[in-house]
Amino acid sequence: MLSDIKIGCSSTNTKYGKRLDTAIIELNTKANISGLFTSNKFKSAPVQVCLDQFKKKMHGKKMLIVNAGNANAATGEKGVEDTKRLINNISNLSGIEFNKILPFSTGVVGELLDMESLVPAFKDCIKNLSKNTWSDFAKAIMTTDTHHKMVKHEVKIGSKKFKIIGIAKGVGMIEPNMATTLSYVFTDLKIPSIKLKKLHKKACDNSFNVISIDGDQSPSDSTILVATGSVDIDIKRYEEKIERELLTVFRKLSEKLVLDGEGATKLIRINVKGLSSYDDCKKVALKIANSPLVKTAAYGEDPNWGRIISAAGNANVDEFDMNNLNLKIGKHLVLFKGNLSKSYSESKGRREFRKKIIQLDITLGKSKNSALIMTSDLTPDYISINSDYRS
Amino acid sequence: MLSDIKIGCSSTNTKYGKRLDTAIIELNTKANISGLFTSNKFKSAPVQVCLDQFKKKMHGKKMLIVNAGNANAATGEKGVEDTKRLINNISNLSGIEFNKILPFSTGVVGELLDMESLVPAFKDCIKNLSKNTWSDFAKAIMTTDTHHKMVKHEVKIGSKKFKIIGIAKGVGMIEPNMATTLSYVFTDLKIPSIKLKKLHKKACDNSFNVISIDGDQSPSDSTILVATGSVDIDIKRYEEKIERELLTVFRKLSEKLVLDGEGATKLIRINVKGLSSYDDCKKVALKIANSPLVKTAAYGEDPNWGRIISAAGNANVDEFDMNNLNLKIGKHLVLFKGNLSKSYSESKGRREFRKKIIQLDITLGKSKNSALIMTSDLTPDYISINSDYRS
Repeated sequence: MLSDIKIGCSSTNTKYGKRLDTAIIELNTKANISGLFTSNKFKSAPVQVCLDQFKKKMHGKKMLIVNAGNANAATGEKGVEDTKRLINNISNLSGIEFNKILPFSTGVVGELLDMESLVPAFKDCIKNLSKNTWSDFAKAIMTTDTHHKMVKHEVKIGSKKFKIIGIAKGVGMIEPNMATTLSYVFTDLKIPSIKLKKLHKKACDNSFNVISIDGDQSPSDSTILVATGSVDIDIKRYEEKIERELLTVFRKLSEKLVLDGEGATKLIRINVKGLSSYDDCKKVALKIANSPLVKTAAYGEDPNWGRIISAAGNANVDEFDMNNLNLKIGKHLVLFKGNLSKSYSESKGRREFRKKIIQLDITLGKSKNSALIMTSDLTPDYISINSDYRS
Repeated sequence: MLSDIKIGCSSTNTKYGKRLDTAIIELNTKANISGLFTSNKFKSAPVQVCLDQFKKKMHGKKMLIVNAGNANAATGEKGVEDTKRLINNISNLSGIEFNKILPFSTGVVGELLDMESLVPAFKDCIKNLSKNTWSDFAKAIMTTDTHHKMVKHEVKIGSKKFKIIGIAKGVGMIEPNMATTLSYVFTDLKIPSIKLKKLHKKACDNSFNVISIDGDQSPSDSTILVATGSVDIDIKRYEEKIERELLTVFRKLSEKLVLDGEGATKLIRINVKGLSSYDDCKKVALKIANSPLVKTAAYGEDPNWGRIISAAGNANVDEFDMNNLNLKIGKHLVLFKGNLSKSYSESKGRREFRKKIIQLDITLGKSKNSALIMTSDLTPDYISINSDYRS
């Protein structure tokens, strides 16, 4: 049962016109929460406040409050004060303790919150609690997202059923090591706090932390996993299964984020294996994923494998040896031990690059380590979205 | 006197039509050469051959041979054979020893050289030796450069004069730690080999190695410094002066490369100082320089300082502290100890971002270390140049 979660949304009627852009989620007393936040040294005001809140105990009713349009980042002490003032207001109106209200802001960096429009909007959200739906929430947290992102998942274990709902918003500034801009995953399972955090970290490491849109990480990136506690299943016995099901939802959300990367038309999955350290595999995969030359080639549907291996060579990995490099584009072997494969032809590569999902496999040695990174192409739309004055 | 250098150019009449795309430079017996090459682990065939040649002694007449349009990179053993075959041909025709011919190729990666057109073109270059000019050479080595790049510099020390001529081509795939695609600097000074290499490295470290167009480094990047030996000046006494004059030429070439970065409309100079390690300053500056969000904001003339400090925070430098961060855009203080400066206004920032050269100064502490990185903006033209099939 996720139905005991109350959702209230509203609009500030500012940046996005009448669109929903503020939301509150109320969680019951039994719910446990895990939060993971940006590893950017520069953290937004709400992230700073969330990190503080998580240091205290999270018993009793809890709230998540989100506004879209202004990230309240690089706003100094005033930004933190504003966030605390909003929490205070909401605490007074709702009766929920200050310490149990988690704030999230997404949008432009470097501008103070417009308190005059936010205070009444959040007041409205409280009035609307229980009136809004999951998809309202998913829409309310969007910024430059072209559509809202939601994954609903139901699982049966024996006679028991549990649900997972995931909601996320992107879309620029996404890079591994903690990072989707904002994501919220809710399950009705009963999971103790420590276990929840462990499951959360594992799911993130294999989903949000392997996507990279533009190599930038926002000061606001936050991901939340909530277990409301109404479905009691033997967690120890079914841990692997639960881990897998959570990962499914986190992965689907990640792929949605990449495909809605600013201006993106393609998802590029880069798998690097065979180096004796996992970190080196990841370094090579990331270098390829963040290469503007590879990303523009993907946009142009040009199987320009020279750029792929050139980026790989740039990762500055000692073990890298061109004479040991195999490259596959989709199912086609392009390079075998550094030499052009006789079976490869341009038209084969081009067919793969015309697909919506481009798969690149690079092998650099015999070890079993492998690292996956997902990214999007770099397109004229990315430039126009991001060069428009204060998008 | 640089006039004893012979230049011969020709055209293969292939990729670029009738444009010059092959060139040979003949150097006299007295000339000393220093070469520095890409640090990409994946090196083009000519770079591999050059590195071998430099292991041997470089006495006697020498030649530099360049072709534009095909980088002969990722071409495996066949690529190396082709380069050696070209050198062999030229050696037979010119009488210059195989070991003293240095090959350079620039252009598309992953295609074998078109030997049928290159062999006669280089034969022509030899016929034309002495007939072509410096600017012919500068034009012949271009790929997607919009114009040729040449710097002429004359210096007087006492009664003696010496000259420096620098020629370079860019323009994508340029990143610090060795890298301009191709550059050739010639002086008529007499400089011993070891001293020449030292001067060369120093000049590169403060010019080509502080520019970054797209974070990618080509497998072909090569820079050459030649001292022909006809002007004899007391090198020890005037070393600092000579160092400075060489740096002037290397810097000017670097700035030309950035401003002709693929699709570039702006030069962004990023200066980061105050961290207790130089490497950390450089890390922060590079992260800003390579941030697509910063680069698109520059293109859009949007002084989006939030993106600048967000990129800075992403550099993952332990010492980074937002409460210690000062940011200046041009002459205007934007942030002082992490708080928005009262004297700053959007219109001031915007005026700076409308300039052709945008200057960003970030201070993160009290140390005297400072690192400069230069980059270009990211523009729709960058995408269109690089997404065109096999540019």
